[in-house]
Amino acid sequence: MDHKETDISGTPVLPDQGRRNFLETTAKATLAGAGLAMGLAACKSDKPAATAPAKAAEGDGARAVAPGEFDVHPGKLDSYYIFSSAGHNGEVRIYGLPSGRTLKRIPVFNLDPMVGWGITNESKKIMGTKPDGTLKYTTGDTHHVHGSYTDGTYDSKYLWTNDKLNGRIARIRMDRMECDAITEIPNVQGFHGIFPDKRDPVDSNINHTTRVFCGAEFHSPQPNDGRDVNDPTKWFALFTCVDAESMDVRWQVKVDGNMDLVATSYDGKLAATNQYNTENGYLLADMMSAERDACVFFNIERVEAAIKAGKSFTIGDSKVPVVDGTHAANQDPKTALTCYVPVPKNPHGVNLSPDGKYFVCSGKLSPTATVIATELVHKWFAGELKDPRDAVVAEPEIGLGPLHTAFDGRGNAYTSLFLDSQIVKWNVEKAIAQYKGDKSVQPVVDRIDVHYQPGHTYASMGETKEADGKFLNAGNKFSKDRFLPVGPLHVETEQLIDITGDKMRLIHDHTAYPEPHDAIIVRADVVKTKQVSDMNDFPNAVKSMDDNRVERHGNKVFVYMTSQAPNYGLAEIKVKHGDEVTITVTNHDKVEDLTHGFGIEKYNVNFIINPQETHSVTFKADKPGAFWIYCTHFCHALHLEMRSRFIVEK
Amino acid sequence: MDHKETDISGTPVLPDQGRRNFLETTAKATLAGAGLAMGLAACKSDKPAATAPAKAAEGDGARAVAPGEFDVHPGKLDSYYIFSSAGHNGEVRIYGLPSGRTLKRIPVFNLDPMVGWGITNESKKIMGTKPDGTLKYTTGDTHHVHGSYTDGTYDSKYLWTNDKLNGRIARIRMDRMECDAITEIPNVQGFHGIFPDKRDPVDSNINHTTRVFCGAEFHSPQPNDGRDVNDPTKWFALFTCVDAESMDVRWQVKVDGNMDLVATSYDGKLAATNQYNTENGYLLADMMSAERDACVFFNIERVEAAIKAGKSFTIGDSKVPVVDGTHAANQDPKTALTCYVPVPKNPHGVNLSPDGKYFVCSGKLSPTATVIATELVHKWFAGELKDPRDAVVAEPEIGLGPLHTAFDGRGNAYTSLFLDSQIVKWNVEKAIAQYKGDKSVQPVVDRIDVHYQPGHTYASMGETKEADGKFLNAGNKFSKDRFLPVGPLHVETEQLIDITGDKMRLIHDHTAYPEPHDAIIVRADVVKTKQVSDMNDFPNAVKSMDDNRVERHGNKVFVYMTSQAPNYGLAEIKVKHGDEVTITVTNHDKVEDLTHGFGIEKYNVNFIINPQETHSVTFKADKPGAFWIYCTHFCHALHLEMRSRFIVEK
Repeated sequence: MDHKETDISGTPVLPDQGRRNFLETTAKATLAGAGLAMGLAACKSDKPAATAPAKAAEGDGARAVAPGEFDVHPGKLDSYYIFSSAGHNGEVRIYGLPSGRTLKRIPVFNLDPMVGWGITNESKKIMGTKPDGTLKYTTGDTHHVHGSYTDGTYDSKYLWTNDKLNGRIARIRMDRMECDAITEIPNVQGFHGIFPDKRDPVDSNINHTTRVFCGAEFHSPQPNDGRDVNDPTKWFALFTCVDAESMDVRWQVKVDGNMDLVATSYDGKLAATNQYNTENGYLLADMMSAERDACVFFNIERVEAAIKAGKSFTIGDSKVPVVDGTHAANQDPKTALTCYVPVPKNPHGVNLSPDGKYFVCSGKLSPTATVIATELVHKWFAGELKDPRDAVVAEPEIGLGPLHTAFDGRGNAYTSLFLDSQIVKWNVEKAIAQYKGDKSVQPVVDRIDVHYQPGHTYASMGETKEADGKFLNAGNKFSKDRFLPVGPLHVETEQLIDITGDKMRLIHDHTAYPEPHDAIIVRADVVKTKQVSDMNDFPNAVKSMDDNRVERHGNKVFVYMTSQAPNYGLAEIKVKHGDEVTITVTNHDKVEDLTHGFGIEKYNVNFIINPQETHSVTFKADKPGAFWIYCTHFCHALHLEMRSRFIVEK
Repeated sequence: MDHKETDISGTPVLPDQGRRNFLETTAKATLAGAGLAMGLAACKSDKPAATAPAKAAEGDGARAVAPGEFDVHPGKLDSYYIFSSAGHNGEVRIYGLPSGRTLKRIPVFNLDPMVGWGITNESKKIMGTKPDGTLKYTTGDTHHVHGSYTDGTYDSKYLWTNDKLNGRIARIRMDRMECDAITEIPNVQGFHGIFPDKRDPVDSNINHTTRVFCGAEFHSPQPNDGRDVNDPTKWFALFTCVDAESMDVRWQVKVDGNMDLVATSYDGKLAATNQYNTENGYLLADMMSAERDACVFFNIERVEAAIKAGKSFTIGDSKVPVVDGTHAANQDPKTALTCYVPVPKNPHGVNLSPDGKYFVCSGKLSPTATVIATELVHKWFAGELKDPRDAVVAEPEIGLGPLHTAFDGRGNAYTSLFLDSQIVKWNVEKAIAQYKGDKSVQPVVDRIDVHYQPGHTYASMGETKEADGKFLNAGNKFSKDRFLPVGPLHVETEQLIDITGDKMRLIHDHTAYPEPHDAIIVRADVVKTKQVSDMNDFPNAVKSMDDNRVERHGNKVFVYMTSQAPNYGLAEIKVKHGDEVTITVTNHDKVEDLTHGFGIEKYNVNFIINPQETHSVTFKADKPGAFWIYCTHFCHALHLEMRSRFIVEK
C-alpha cells in the first residue's frame, strides 16, 4: 500500500497521525496490547477480530453492581425509552431502560403480518408500490434513528430512520409510534447516516427541526441509467437535505468521498459528515491511500442561497437541485459551501458534544479521536481561520478502533473501541490541554470491556442539551458465548452501563435480534404518546354502525365494516369469483389496548385495527368457496367468537 | 339463549355444571368476586374484561422475591429455553429463562429481510410459491409450538408450529433453529392446535415422535370449491395426522364440533382434542346452546386400521384418506375410532399430566376443570366402561375463565383463569377425593394475580415426564399499564412465576410483541445446537474459491460466489438489462458467529449466509446501472469494506 503523506488539503501529515505510527505506537501501548493482537489477527488470518474474547471486568470492586440495584420490579415502569434502528431487519425498536424490555417493534422497511404492514392499503401507500400494485421493496437496512428537536432537546414529535439498502428515509410519528412517510432519495447508494437540524440556519425564531440531512456512502454513476457503469472514476456521492414536514427532498450537494455519519450544530448553521475515501478511489487500496480524510462541514445557509441564486444543476430525471460541494470547488472560505477539516484516514463517526462546542470524529484506522471546535469552523467560513485543520483542538490517543462517541454532559466523552472491545471514557478539556502541550495530562480516565466489538454507543439524552450522564448503551456486533446457543445465527448484545460515577459499571447484557445498529436514549417524561386515536384522523372511517354495507361497482366490490367487541359489523360478506374486493374496517371500541385483528382464511389477509382507527385491504377474490374471517388480535372475553364469513360464489 | 340440559351423549346434565349455575355460584364465591364483575361487565358493556386491573400481589410476604434472586449476571447463561409461538406475527421465538431475553426470532410464516426468509430461493421453496414464483402466503398466525419426544421427553430434534390463518404446519430443525418444512393441510380452516405423539401406537419399540396431530377449529364446506357456500349446516371440521419426518399428511378424521387444543398420551395410543360447538351450529347462539360439549379421544391404532381396511373417503382434489369420527358413527366402544367424553360447554384447552394419568380439559364458560383418567378412556374403548362421562374423575371449581393447565410433576396443576386474571394452583389428587365425595378437601391451594387476562400458561419441562416444577410462565393477552406507553398498539406481557414453594412468586414481567401465544419451557442442557454448519449439507455450495464465476445460458445468468471476510469471491458481476440472474453465495468462513450478509442496492435483495452455508436468489435485472453489493451483517474488522459491484449493462 502506498501512503501519501498529505491530507485532502495538501497539508503534510504530521508523523504522529500516520497509519504506520498507529501500528507502531499502539503496539507499545500497554493499554491496547490484547486489542491490537486481536485487531491485527483479524487482518492476517481467517479468524475474525471477534474470536478473542476480552476479559470480563464486570462485578469487580468499584464496578460492582448491587443485587437488584437496577431492577425494574413487576408493574414498575422504566425510566428511559431507547429508540433503536434494527439494521438489515428493516424495523425500528423501542426498548425500556434499565430493564432492556422490548416495548415495541415498529415495522418500517419490513413487512409485519401482525400489524398488517405491507398488507393494508394505507401501509402500502407509505411503503411505495410498483405499477402493478405490489410493493416496490420488502427489504431495508435501517442504520440510524434520530428524533426531532425543539430548543435543543427532543420534542417527541418525529423520529427519522434511514435505509442503506434502497436509499430511503422514513419518518415515525411519535404519538402513535408508527411510520407515516417514506421518501426514496434520488441518485444515492449506501445511504448511511442521518441527522435532523436543531434550529433554522436563517430564521432564529424557528427553534425546532425543519430539515433532515442524509449522508450517502457509496459512489455511483450520476445518473445511474446504464451510462458510466464501467467507469467508476466518474462516480460520486451526494449529501441530501429532506424537508422534515413534507418529507420532500429539498436539495443535494455533490461531495468528495464517502459519508457515514451526520451530525448537526445547535445553532442550525452546520451539518457535518465524516468523509472517508476523499481520494474518490474505487478499489479498497485506493480508498485507504491518503493518510488523512476529512470531517466535512456544510454551511446550510450558503447552500440554500446558492440554490436560490440558480447555482445548481439536476441529475437525470431528478428535479432536485444539486450544488457542487467538492473540495476543489470550495477553496475560498468566504464563499465556500463546504469546509473539509482533515482528520486521520477513514473516519467513521462524528458526534457533537451536548454544549455544542465540539464535534468528535474518529475511525478504525487511527487510535485517536479528533476534536473540532464549532466556533473555529465558523471562523474558517468567515475567512478568519487559514487552515481548516486549525479547527482541530485535540486529538487524543484513546485506543484501537474508535468509532462513535457519546457524552455525559459533564465534559466526558465515551468512545466505542471496536478493536479493543471497550468503551473508553475520556475528558474533552483534558484532551484539549494535552493537545496544547501539557504532557502531564492524561485524557483517558476509564475504560470498560464490552462483549464484543461495539459499533455505536449512546448516552441518556446524550445528543441533546439535556445530556444527563446516567446510562450508556453499547451496541455490540458479536455476542459469541454470552447467551445460550441457538444455532449458527447468533443474537447480538446490547450492554447497559452506569456512567454516573468515576468508574463505568456494567449493569447487564440485553440481547438484540440482528442488528442493534444505533439508538437514542430518551427520558421517559419527554415522550408523549396517544393510546387511543381520533376516528376523524382516518379519512376512510366507517363512522356509524349503520354504514356497514357491501357496494358493487362493476366487478369492484367495496365492503364497509365496523368492529366492536365481540362482533364485526357484517356477519357475512358475499362476492363473486374474480371480483376485486376492498374491505375497510373501522374499530369502534374506545378502550385503550382494545385492538382488533382481521384475518381471512387462505386469502393472505391479516392486519390489526387499533381503537378508533381504520384500515383497508384490496385483493382479488381468486378462489371460490367460504372463508372465515376471524379476529387475530386478542380483544375481549368473546374474542374467539369474533368471526364473519367471506363467501366467494362461483 | 336456549339451554339444552343434555350433553352430546344425551346424558342429562348435572345441575351444578350448567351455565346458569356457573353465574350463580361464582357470584357467591369470595375468591372470584372481582373477577366475576370484570367478566360480566365484559359481556354487557363496551368495556373489555381487561379494563379492570387485578390487584397486584407480587412482593407481599411469602411471595417476596429477594433483590437479585433470579438475576442472570452479565456473561452468565440462562438455565432454560422458552420456545414460543408468536401468534399473528407468524414467527417462533426463543427466550432465555429466567432472564426473559429474546435469543432468537425464527421466521416461519412471515418474511424476514435480515435472514432473507421469503427472499432466498431456499426459503421460498419451503414457504411455497404461486406459479409466477411469488410467495403464496406472506402472513400466518402461529398458535402453538411443541417439540419432538423420545422416551417421554424432548429430544431436541424438531419443533412444530401451526398457522391458524392459512392452515399450515411448519417444522423447525433444532440443530440450526430454522424452519425446514411447511405443509398446507387440505380442507381445514382455523387450524388451531397441534401436538406430536410420544411413541408409536402399535410398535412399542418406536419410543419417539413419528406423527403430529392437528386440530381444526372452523367448519367449512368439504370440498371448499364454491358448492355449499350458502349452507353451513353441511360444513364440518377435520382432525389431521401429519408424518413427523416426511411432513406429508397421513390421514384425516371427520368430527363433530370445533377443535382448539390437542394433547397426546405417553403410550402413543391416544390423541385428545377439546371440542366446542358439538352442536355443529353456525351462529354463536347455536354454538353455545348445549350445556355440555366434549373432550374427544382418538384411538390412533383403530383410525389407521380403518384406513388400511379401506374404510375411508377423500374430499375434492385431496388424496388424503378421511374416516368418519363423528359421534353418531362411533357408538360402539369396541369399534369406535373416537370417544366423546362430555365436559362443560365450550371447552378451550386440554393438557396431560406428566405422569400420563390425567387429561385436564376446561373452557371459559364453566368455572371448572374436568379431569379425565387416561386409563378409563382405554377402558371405554375396551367396552369396559359404559358411559364416556364415567372417565371423568374430578371436576373442581377453580375460578372464572379457566383455559389451560400446566403441571409441576409433584401432583399440582396450574390453570390460567382468563376472567379472573389469575393462575390458580390446585392439587389433582385432592380434586379427585373431593369428586368422590370428601367435602373436607379443598383442591385449590394457591392463586396469584397476573396482568392481565392470561391465555396459555406452561411450566418448565411440564409437558414431559421430566416436569421439574421450577418455573411457570403466563402468556397474558393485555399489558394495559404495565409498561411505558408506546402508542395505541400495546405490547403484551409474559410473567415468570417461581413454583418451587407452596406459594407462587411473581419473578418479573417480560414484554412480548403481540402475541405471546403458547410456549414450552425446556431445560438448557436438553437443547443441542450446531453453531457451524457442514458445507456438504448445502447441495448448491460453491465449494472452492476457484469456482467463483458467472455463467450465461441464453438470458439466464448464474453467478457462483464465495464470501470470506473481508471479501466476496467476485469484485464485480456484469449482466445485461433484462437477464434473469441467479446468484449463489457460499460462506467459506468457519468461525462461529461469522455470518455474512448479501444486499444489492435498489434490487430488494438481502439475506445472510451463516458460516459454511449456501443461499441463492433469483431475480430479473430490470434496471440498467451500477449497484453496490455490500455485506449487511457485521462480520469482521473490514466489514464495511466488504463490497462488490453489480453492473447491469444496457
